[in-house]
Amino acid sequence: MAGDGVDQRALQYEQTLMYGRYTQELGVYAKEEAARLREGGQRRSVGRSLDLLEYDKGRCAKCRRSGYPWVLEAPARDFISVCTVRCQKFLISRVGEDWIFLILLGLLMALVSWAVDFCIAICLQAQKWMYGGLDSNVFLQYLAWVTYPVVLITFSAGFTQILAPQAVGSGIPEMKTILRGVVLKEYLTFKTFVAKVIGLTCALGSGMPLGKEGPFVHIASLCAALLSRFMSLFGGIYENESRNIEMLAAACAVGVGCCFAAPIGGVLFSIEVTSTFFAVRNYWRGFFAATFSAFIFRVLAVWNRDEETITALFKTRFRLDFPFDLQELPAFAVIGIASGFGGALFVYLNRLIVQFIRKQKAINKFLMKKRLLYPALVTLLVSTLTFPPGFGQFMAGKLTQKEALVTLLDNRTWAKQGIAEDFDYLGHLQAWQHPQVNVFVTLVLFIVMKFWMSALATTIPVPCGAFMPVFVIGAAFGRLVGESMAAWFPDGIHTDGVIYPIVPGGYAVVGAAALSGAVTHTVSTAVIVFELTGQISHILPVMIAVILANAVAQSLQPSLYDSIIRIKKLPYLPELGWGHHEKYNIRVEDIMVRDVRYITLNCCYRDLHNVLLTGNLKTLALVESAESMILLGSIERAQLQALLSQQLGRARRMEYIRENAMAFKKCMSDPESPPPPPPVEDTNSQQRHSTQEVRFQITTEESTLSPTRPTPQKPLKPALKRPSVVDRPPEILTANNDNSGIALKNLFCANPDAEALEDDGDTEDDMTIREIAEWEEQQLDEQVNFSNCKIDPAPFQLVERTSLHKTHTIFSLLGLDHAYVTSIGRLIGVVSLKELRKAIEGSVTVKGTKVRPPLASFRDSGTSSSENEATELHKLWDRHKSMSLPREHTQSDSDEKSQ
Amino acid sequence: MAGDGVDQRALQYEQTLMYGRYTQELGVYAKEEAARLREGGQRRSVGRSLDLLEYDKGRCAKCRRSGYPWVLEAPARDFISVCTVRCQKFLISRVGEDWIFLILLGLLMALVSWAVDFCIAICLQAQKWMYGGLDSNVFLQYLAWVTYPVVLITFSAGFTQILAPQAVGSGIPEMKTILRGVVLKEYLTFKTFVAKVIGLTCALGSGMPLGKEGPFVHIASLCAALLSRFMSLFGGIYENESRNIEMLAAACAVGVGCCFAAPIGGVLFSIEVTSTFFAVRNYWRGFFAATFSAFIFRVLAVWNRDEETITALFKTRFRLDFPFDLQELPAFAVIGIASGFGGALFVYLNRLIVQFIRKQKAINKFLMKKRLLYPALVTLLVSTLTFPPGFGQFMAGKLTQKEALVTLLDNRTWAKQGIAEDFDYLGHLQAWQHPQVNVFVTLVLFIVMKFWMSALATTIPVPCGAFMPVFVIGAAFGRLVGESMAAWFPDGIHTDGVIYPIVPGGYAVVGAAALSGAVTHTVSTAVIVFELTGQISHILPVMIAVILANAVAQSLQPSLYDSIIRIKKLPYLPELGWGHHEKYNIRVEDIMVRDVRYITLNCCYRDLHNVLLTGNLKTLALVESAESMILLGSIERAQLQALLSQQLGRARRMEYIRENAMAFKKCMSDPESPPPPPPVEDTNSQQRHSTQEVRFQITTEESTLSPTRPTPQKPLKPALKRPSVVDRPPEILTANNDNSGIALKNLFCANPDAEALEDDGDTEDDMTIREIAEWEEQQLDEQVNFSNCKIDPAPFQLVERTSLHKTHTIFSLLGLDHAYVTSIGRLIGVVSLKELRKAIEGSVTVKGTKVRPPLASFRDSGTSSSENEATELHKLWDRHKSMSLPREHTQSDSDEKSQ
Repeated sequence: MAGDGVDQRALQYEQTLMYGRYTQELGVYAKEEAARLREGGQRRSVGRSLDLLEYDKGRCAKCRRSGYPWVLEAPARDFISVCTVRCQKFLISRVGEDWIFLILLGLLMALVSWAVDFCIAICLQAQKWMYGGLDSNVFLQYLAWVTYPVVLITFSAGFTQILAPQAVGSGIPEMKTILRGVVLKEYLTFKTFVAKVIGLTCALGSGMPLGKEGPFVHIASLCAALLSRFMSLFGGIYENESRNIEMLAAACAVGVGCCFAAPIGGVLFSIEVTSTFFAVRNYWRGFFAATFSAFIFRVLAVWNRDEETITALFKTRFRLDFPFDLQELPAFAVIGIASGFGGALFVYLNRLIVQFIRKQKAINKFLMKKRLLYPALVTLLVSTLTFPPGFGQFMAGKLTQKEALVTLLDNRTWAKQGIAEDFDYLGHLQAWQHPQVNVFVTLVLFIVMKFWMSALATTIPVPCGAFMPVFVIGAAFGRLVGESMAAWFPDGIHTDGVIYPIVPGGYAVVGAAALSGAVTHTVSTAVIVFELTGQISHILPVMIAVILANAVAQSLQPSLYDSIIRIKKLPYLPELGWGHHEKYNIRVEDIMVRDVRYITLNCCYRDLHNVLLTGNLKTLALVESAESMILLGSIERAQLQALLSQQLGRARRMEYIRENAMAFKKCMSDPESPPPPPPVEDTNSQQRHSTQEVRFQITTEESTLSPTRPTPQKPLKPALKRPSVVDRPPEILTANNDNSGIALKNLFCANPDAEALEDDGDTEDDMTIREIAEWEEQQLDEQVNFSNCKIDPAPFQLVERTSLHKTHTIFSLLGLDHAYVTSIGRLIGVVSLKELRKAIEGSVTVKGTKVRPPLASFRDSGTSSSENEATELHKLWDRHKSMSLPREHTQSDSDEKSQ
Repeated sequence: MAGDGVDQRALQYEQTLMYGRYTQELGVYAKEEAARLREGGQRRSVGRSLDLLEYDKGRCAKCRRSGYPWVLEAPARDFISVCTVRCQKFLISRVGEDWIFLILLGLLMALVSWAVDFCIAICLQAQKWMYGGLDSNVFLQYLAWVTYPVVLITFSAGFTQILAPQAVGSGIPEMKTILRGVVLKEYLTFKTFVAKVIGLTCALGSGMPLGKEGPFVHIASLCAALLSRFMSLFGGIYENESRNIEMLAAACAVGVGCCFAAPIGGVLFSIEVTSTFFAVRNYWRGFFAATFSAFIFRVLAVWNRDEETITALFKTRFRLDFPFDLQELPAFAVIGIASGFGGALFVYLNRLIVQFIRKQKAINKFLMKKRLLYPALVTLLVSTLTFPPGFGQFMAGKLTQKEALVTLLDNRTWAKQGIAEDFDYLGHLQAWQHPQVNVFVTLVLFIVMKFWMSALATTIPVPCGAFMPVFVIGAAFGRLVGESMAAWFPDGIHTDGVIYPIVPGGYAVVGAAALSGAVTHTVSTAVIVFELTGQISHILPVMIAVILANAVAQSLQPSLYDSIIRIKKLPYLPELGWGHHEKYNIRVEDIMVRDVRYITLNCCYRDLHNVLLTGNLKTLALVESAESMILLGSIERAQLQALLSQQLGRARRMEYIRENAMAFKKCMSDPESPPPPPPVEDTNSQQRHSTQEVRFQITTEESTLSPTRPTPQKPLKPALKRPSVVDRPPEILTANNDNSGIALKNLFCANPDAEALEDDGDTEDDMTIREIAEWEEQQLDEQVNFSNCKIDPAPFQLVERTSLHKTHTIFSLLGLDHAYVTSIGRLIGVVSLKELRKAIEGSVTVKGTKVRPPLASFRDSGTSSSENEATELHKLWDRHKSMSLPREHTQSDSDEKSQ
């Protein structure tokens, strides 16, 4: 691999030379070049290029894996191919890969978004057309009204379930987890992409109160991942992992941006929703891609003659000169506070429904069997209630989500009874009017019904988000308050002569931003609202309401996405709460696990075996010795398994047999030589006797180990895998089947005995099981050779006195999974995400008392001197001063730790 | 200190108990309590409270430093004070300190901003009034026009220079550095606050092309720092350093927010301009404070009857239904690209002027002598050129910045020659009209003149920013393009029947955002523009132009703030450039300093002395031994100095003399006992002989050491100090004067000989200099006792193969100053900000060739196995296996390092 890279670089170097000659005789040169390329195969391993390599830095890196068609036949074709290669190189190297990538991503997502919108619109039109065509018979109408969404949702649920169950739901919680550095299996595949796009189109086409924002974040990330894989055909940079994460972050922005044609809001929303720490240097990526995407998305509408020019998606036409009076601000604040409670209630309700369905064993069993029944039932219920001639007439049931939003943001006042001629409930606005019922009642009913419907609908296992439904509900609530204000102050509040009537549409804008902000715990919904409506005149009311809503909601409930993360048990680190300053006073020593599994540098394979059997940690600490406990690094479990399988593998056994045989032969041919060493040395005869017991013991432990394997996927909860479990190198697994030793079997297979007996009895391997066991025992007592082992020489280290706050910061900044706690180089504990999560959640609920040991308050909370460290070092120093043998004092306590 | 803390906690505990009894008999209890408090002084050291301490966790932390008036006389007063205390505690603990702080900060800044604006308006009006009143005589008019700003600017420069030279300039570069974790001396003091506010008001009142945004960021930070100090009177949490940084970040947002009444843009701009990594959990702070501040700022305008209601600062009235045509987008893109070049040119020009003035020795000397001459001259030049009856008539010279911006954003078209009746150059618009000269010429002249004037004016040493001037120039440029477009397409571009004329004001908005974005390298100017104008209809053109401008400007020049950081040589880490993926392939081992200064655990004071003399690092690495090089921690220089001064101090010498005398007496009285040990042991007689030489050598080294002391402050460049240099504990410095030993003198004083001779000859200290030197030599050979020393047990560690990219990320994430490079626990190098900066700047300019060693390209850029680590560990493993004495192999190479 390395040699290959060098050869390719040599080729690239020659190509680089060509640049220099370009102005001379291109035709002649192209021929030369082609001839050289053809010969390239023969003289690949030429060493002379080594000293020239420093000249072709950045350029060659891109093409290392490109795999150009080097097999050329004629000079003409050579020329063309050389030109192509050069053009390609130029394009890739000069324009900047990030740009190309982001533009492609933006373009792709804009097309997807537009296509999805187009299909949804057609679906909704079809439903209306069916419903309208059957207006002679109410029952038929009802059937059409109900059957259509049920079929669509059922199809969506079934399709997603079959193709890629990972596509279910919003996707933002999962993206948050992925951007945290966790690899979710099958989450960014083409299958998921197809399932998500088609599933989402059908789900939204059904007219259920579902949104497209969350799924679009996921779709954009899918797009980015697939595009990244595609682009990696052209250049090596696309394989860098940290770059991929950066691109995924940009993709999240694109997802929101092209969904609402809101580039700025998209970037901010995606940052707030997915990131803990944000690298400002990646900021432009999101803006660039989201702007391009939003631009193309809106240009498509213009080209499709839907719009005359590029405008906002839900354009409002509020008056500019006096958008609101100062004295209306309390009303806006009320909207904010009420939205905060509403948002928390929504999250709570959503979680309650999921948990209720999970807990009810009977329902659950039935629903699990008929997986499509639950979506169908929910859809039936919701669409029955919204049936326009039925209950739907009291809640504007015939309006689609989009139509409802447009009417709610209308700049006219509905409730102004006096001036009826101003307002004649044109078009969709008619839906809000009912001959018997007041418009206030309609609005209240709309809010209440849509509220639980949305909370219920978002639990259906189809690709769907909750942002848009919540947004509409918020708008309706704002409208309700606005209309009330308009009814209360028919001539406006302003007293200085000029009459400025109240604009209920502005209240709707404020309500929408506040409620969606409360549910998602974001402030950037304010920006989204401005970009959606194309007006920023209500900026202060919106900001005030959103901030108040956030303050209330964040103190009551987690955000919807965090709630889903908890429900799905995704490995995510919760945020530190607002102003919980006790966290500055909890230390790592209070939360760390002191009983660390470790291996020593001079351990034998038996220790390795035992450590692997008794724990299921992904990585193990490597210390210098059990006495010193000086941390040297960490080793992945897979590496250790490989080491063990190598040591006990068939290959080595065969070699051993061969050597034995050779020695035997030699001994036979040379009678003077001493007899060959016995196959098994007698030094550990005790262990030999206890082999059967040991194996028995191992087998029982085996059964406790097995639950760590990936369990079969359950519906509603996509399977989740941590990277190192996923990335267990396939050669190890395959190696097991070949080199099946007994101890290895114990480690890797669920039922080792049967296989072991079968496999090892036959073939040229003429050792008995007994002999193999003995040989293995002998092998296990050898010292481990770590020289071929990948060791991470700098696992992240904390000290005992690191505060919880700092630990949290470091974990989220660096995306850590665990960190070792050291004291002057000695390993004394380990903190993993689990402990940290426990500590944070514990302290959030009970204000620190749970995790804080009784003596924590003794500690000086300032930065000043630390007696612990001093005494610790003092010990070490004393030892150094007084002792001849280093590290004898610490032996006793570290021996305790090593069980 | 620690004991005191315990006592106070005991007091607090009693107060906590009071809560429990509140419902019983409050009056009785208050008396008891008061009595107990009065007795408090006597029984402070009572140990019984220790076991109860676990109950008074979070509550007591706040009041520890509150200093309530405990001296009470009557029960009534007791009761009142207890109530007051309780109320105070309730207020502080319940409402949440962050809220209160942010609200106060917002309120304060809004008031400051409004007051400054008010004063500036008065100043400008006064100038106009003077100029208008003298319209009979052009010469007098000129005098008035010129003298007024010259006086104001000179006053501002002088006032700032005298009171606080740190207030000069924008403040954003300094805030960026402070938020990076560097302590800039005197930067956040009340003096600076006063100087900045008054200086800024005068500077802007002069009518020079200067801005208030940058200074307001600084003023808000000053406010936050002062408020924080004030609030810390009420609670301990305000003293937490990481919290202070969070609050400063919020303050930056407030600064921009209340300057432009742009809360969202303020938050985003401040993030982009000051942060590298942003913690999303702090997001709300900025939004909350900035919104509140912007709200109050605009409410003040309403209360002052300037506005009818809360609106945008520069409200535009573009049409909503068809803001721009799709085919105008290329023109917007052209504005973006041209602005990018213009922005880069502005930064270059600004730097050029500063460097020119610095380099020209003759000018420089003269200007430095008469510090106020330079501002006066520049002001004279600028105001002469803008004199309205003179050259100013061709460049709208009589308009203030604000007026110019309002006219430029006007929604009418100036150049539409046909429809003259639509447009009659009303009010300020008249300034753009000239009877002889076309409006295009006026605009071009305005742009060109203001461009260099702004670049020049921002180099004046007064508190001023460059954002607003650049914003106005950008608006003028946009207007120019817009007017050209309007002249080119008089009936608009749209061809579908309806005539939509082109809106040049929209172009002005785009131009303003693009140019200011290019100069500051931010995208959020787009948001600021929307909030400033109150219209978001041009979002896509603005976004496109801003992104293009950023792309162009960022590839040509650093941002204005980074440029100032470089000019002022502030300790800041530059950003990694866009898409320079070579950085993923540079490793720490390529840039680290291998010759690390370290001290070993068993070193003697002489080593300490030498290490302190030969280097001027802030912290030194502590390793186990020179052979093992296992990193144990790092110690601050000041700590080591304290250790040394303790060892060689007068107190110990006195003790030694006393002991000697005692022994001598004892010996005299008891003739059988052996003679007392000689004052100086003879084991190191060689060293004793070379004392004089050593001292001489030390003295010469002293002179090379002295430049590390704070140099006298130069004008234009505020003195800068790193925290540990500042925080050298005063007791050490004072200790020097008392305990002046010779070696210590060498270390701390500039001219030690004279003082040493004087001081040590007299008083009861009856040792000769010779004896002292001998005694010190003896002391220096003792082993260091680290037990009373503060040691950081976990300095940040990297490994050789950490990439530059990751190193940069970690340094900027964690605000590091230096990090040790270790290999399996062994210290092998150190990387400081300096090396990192060099590596990044080297690679940014020459694409990695400078810092990349020739063999770097051989390395596998992937994440896969690392031979280095394996071989390194292999060595260690071999050693363990083969050797009886650990770490003998490594001795040879580590000995080389230890010189």
